[in-house]
Amino acid sequence: MSALPLPPLLDHHCHGVLRTDPTAERFASFLTESDAPPAPGTTFFDTQAGFAVRRWCPPLLGLEPHCPPDAYLARRRELGAAETTRRLLAGSGIGGLLVDTGIPGDLLGPAELAAAAGPGTTAREILRLERLAEHTADRTDDTRAFLDGLAGAVEDGAGTAAGFKSVLAYRHGLDIDPAPPGPAEVRAAAGRWLAGRSPGGRLTDPVLLRHLLWSAVRTGRPLQLHTGFGDPDLTLHHCDPLLLTGFVRATAPTGCPLVLLHCYPYHRQAGYLAHAFPHVHLDMGLALTHTGARATAVLGEMLELAPFGKLLFSTDAYGLPELYVVGAELFRRGLRHVLGAWVAEGVWAAADAQRVAAMIAADNARRVYGPESFG
Amino acid sequence: MSALPLPPLLDHHCHGVLRTDPTAERFASFLTESDAPPAPGTTFFDTQAGFAVRRWCPPLLGLEPHCPPDAYLARRRELGAAETTRRLLAGSGIGGLLVDTGIPGDLLGPAELAAAAGPGTTAREILRLERLAEHTADRTDDTRAFLDGLAGAVEDGAGTAAGFKSVLAYRHGLDIDPAPPGPAEVRAAAGRWLAGRSPGGRLTDPVLLRHLLWSAVRTGRPLQLHTGFGDPDLTLHHCDPLLLTGFVRATAPTGCPLVLLHCYPYHRQAGYLAHAFPHVHLDMGLALTHTGARATAVLGEMLELAPFGKLLFSTDAYGLPELYVVGAELFRRGLRHVLGAWVAEGVWAAADAQRVAAMIAADNARRVYGPESFG
Amino acid sequence: MSALPLPPLLDHHCHGVLRTDPTAERFASFLTESDAPPAPGTTFFDTQAGFAVRRWCPPLLGLEPHCPPDAYLARRRELGAAETTRRLLAGSGIGGLLVDTGIPGDLLGPAELAAAAGPGTTAREILRLERLAEHTADRTDDTRAFLDGLAGAVEDGAGTAAGFKSVLAYRHGLDIDPAPPGPAEVRAAAGRWLAGRSPGGRLTDPVLLRHLLWSAVRTGRPLQLHTGFGDPDLTLHHCDPLLLTGFVRATAPTGCPLVLLHCYPYHRQAGYLAHAFPHVHLDMGLALTHTGARATAVLGEMLELAPFGKLLFSTDAYGLPELYVVGAELFRRGLRHVLGAWVAEGVWAAADAQRVAAMIAADNARRVYGPESFG
Repeated sequence: MSALPLPPLLDHHCHGVLRTDPTAERFASFLTESDAPPAPGTTFFDTQAGFAVRRWCPPLLGLEPHCPPDAYLARRRELGAAETTRRLLAGSGIGGLLVDTGIPGDLLGPAELAAAAGPGTTAREILRLERLAEHTADRTDDTRAFLDGLAGAVEDGAGTAAGFKSVLAYRHGLDIDPAPPGPAEVRAAAGRWLAGRSPGGRLTDPVLLRHLLWSAVRTGRPLQLHTGFGDPDLTLHHCDPLLLTGFVRATAPTGCPLVLLHCYPYHRQAGYLAHAFPHVHLDMGLALTHTGARATAVLGEMLELAPFGKLLFSTDAYGLPELYVVGAELFRRGLRHVLGAWVAEGVWAAADAQRVAAMIAADNARRVYGPESFG
Repeated sequence: MSALPLPPLLDHHCHGVLRTDPTAERFASFLTESDAPPAPGTTFFDTQAGFAVRRWCPPLLGLEPHCPPDAYLARRRELGAAETTRRLLAGSGIGGLLVDTGIPGDLLGPAELAAAAGPGTTAREILRLERLAEHTADRTDDTRAFLDGLAGAVEDGAGTAAGFKSVLAYRHGLDIDPAPPGPAEVRAAAGRWLAGRSPGGRLTDPVLLRHLLWSAVRTGRPLQLHTGFGDPDLTLHHCDPLLLTGFVRATAPTGCPLVLLHCYPYHRQAGYLAHAFPHVHLDMGLALTHTGARATAVLGEMLELAPFGKLLFSTDAYGLPELYVVGAELFRRGLRHVLGAWVAEGVWAAADAQRVAAMIAADNARRVYGPESFG
Repeated sequence: MSALPLPPLLDHHCHGVLRTDPTAERFASFLTESDAPPAPGTTFFDTQAGFAVRRWCPPLLGLEPHCPPDAYLARRRELGAAETTRRLLAGSGIGGLLVDTGIPGDLLGPAELAAAAGPGTTAREILRLERLAEHTADRTDDTRAFLDGLAGAVEDGAGTAAGFKSVLAYRHGLDIDPAPPGPAEVRAAAGRWLAGRSPGGRLTDPVLLRHLLWSAVRTGRPLQLHTGFGDPDLTLHHCDPLLLTGFVRATAPTGCPLVLLHCYPYHRQAGYLAHAFPHVHLDMGLALTHTGARATAVLGEMLELAPFGKLLFSTDAYGLPELYVVGAELFRRGLRHVLGAWVAEGVWAAADAQRVAAMIAADNARRVYGPESFG
């Protein structure tokens, strides 16, 4: 069953990678969600993500698995950022990317990522709603012009992007009034926000955050929602996906696909929502990368309540091309181990296991986002 | 250790099954707690419960394990509902049933289930408190007559039924005032409810829900409480069994056994309550059926804090006799795997494993509900 | 890999053990966090902790593993409390103890525990903040004298003890205002508390509890915080370590090490805090003892988000020297099993596994508490 065949993976949630070679310190900072230096006497390499990078990436750069961080970084510098990225992306076994372009910085964009990954790999954009609003606000402080501009940006995005993403979790927490705010309420909130906003100011107003969610839902394009763990900017118990239950109920009649990202340690709670509501889907990314050798166990927990047609592979890779490799390897390895054991014990049929593996690896993403999102 | 001997199982929480052969669509609807159609492009057969039915039931109807849904349903139609039910129940290895009769519909009752299961299988009733109140309200809208009638129904039920069940989780959520409401408060609430009630109206008034709980507790008969996941009618984070901590503390002096049903994904939290409070018990049903191939892992998590004398097997089967088979098989298989591994590693003695297995399979239920509940 | 070498363990959180031989009933009461008798028809020996004691302790007293409770207790009486304690502590493989002396009763103190464990074992004290306040209040009811005395006791403690411990979880729950209370607020709260206090009265005032936390944090000594399960005095969902997120953020600039004790069933949530904040650490004690044969699985879950330099072994042993043996055995066994499997599968390098094992077993405690705490 180690030979469980898998198609090229479709990565429905990822980010750009650094254009230039990072220092050792900056490299290590991408191995954690922490925004602080490591504790005195420790290093971010001594984490599951750090060990996973050292296990899976060195061979793609011509080194032995588990080689020391210094040797790995030296080899990386020797090859240069472009060649390193090319080797790692091409070796990841990923055939399609949906790239959240909402993080600023000198990162490769979707087309560059696809080019680096090599022939046959496609890339499309996922639009981060809060950035869309902030970019619009950067161009005008007139309420009507802002709201018209935002509506146009969402409408345009629905035509060009594979879907939308919300970071409500970071900006407010998930415990929101589920109903769409009325036009007058939105105008008043926009007026207040624009009047008090400094250039580059972040959107945290709950009325406008809800307006963004509902604007996206009305387009019918899939809407990704950050839930569960992330950087210390969020408060984890305010990111339990169950706090979205009211929003899930309110959006059910629209049929707009909701994709719950990350979810850990609330992935069983997210699985329940995917079980109970037809339009809810469950992402497997990030949790696998940051749990490393434990990813197989965590992946098993994701295969409980969620129907098999609702589970979506992703890497949530960001900054380092290594995180594409690690996310893909841990996923393939975990899925083969878990499903393989069930086939070996006779509780699943081999043909079912292959079918489910293909669904989670690629078919579900193609169905949810549309084949054009990977074409 | 695959030969860990187990007595016939006592299923302390289950429901009736359909009297007539269901359509394919209706059959599939019993494989999920969702009340909506499957997501476009998916089927409820592609779930852990669906795969478990296809694994364990076909052989009892003369088919190969894992046979396709269509072939299975064709064979089911060929045999007819009565014969299918007879074969499945008789093959489940269950020797005693406590049947929650609170779900309406054309379902087999306790005596019919016992007859279908064959000689030696007994069945007794569990009374759903909210239905008791609603049935009483269907017969009178006079407050005093209603409260007297309800008191009589609970008293009668304590004499005839094996225990009571509350679906407070669905009607209000578990976060209630733990104290028993006073008589005046109950009268006022009953008056309000009866005055505003349409025929068949559901009871959601928190004062009356608490009155029901305390009326049942005062009888001393075991009280089952729905906690954890269920259909989308509930809000899962309002069903964390820990929200009952105040009620558990308040009822501790009565010694009335409380049985926390389902619990997933809060089964560890429920295990803590069973650990800390003598009168709290932990049900293993539903979570096993809906996690299928993962049931062994979930069952392991239930064997942590809860004392071994507090764990109770059930199937929570409803609608399909298949769910009796699946609930029983997954339980036996999981228990044998988990305990067998501990014996093989030398951390448990074989005699202890056998004793604990018999406790969970049957002895605990007999002690908690009384031997007369399975006689 | 069963030969994964481990240094003598440093137990950063434990308690005294009984000076005299307990009755069977009292012995059993230490196998549970419950403060009530066992449920009718059950015994606390039929728990994971009970089975673990019967597995690991009899051989140290010259008996067969798994021997019946009666035989074990008879042998214990035959040897006497002192000799039993000596054999069990010496056999535990623990080389250093940090003893929380905040529980009253006729218990061995740190020096006596070290002497019983034999040459080479050291013991230092952990001061329980709430006891420090209560002891100070036992000597004066004058507000200024109380606050001066308390400040002096904390300052003295920082010089003599290895660290502090808070049981805020029991006294209030973890959901507190994270900011340090101002001097006037503290004076007013102290005045109120002292005026209303009976001799021996417990401290539950949230302002004073916060004052204690911040007094300890200002010393820079490690601060242990009870989180997760414990005796029924606490309400488990008020002990989710995530409720400390505000306090964690507020104390981050101080660098004072925070050590989250126990954590179960919220150990993944605690692991997130250790991942996100440099000064947060994760204890593995108690959860292992009370999950027994499941400790390996629970330990695996602790090895997910928490950086490897943030995990700390402890036994949380209390009352029975058996709990030192069980805590240490379950830890060594679990760690060897989990890390050994990763090495066998090739996902971790053997040298990394040895290094991480030594970190969790002893090196992290030495770094966090200072080498002088184990010297």
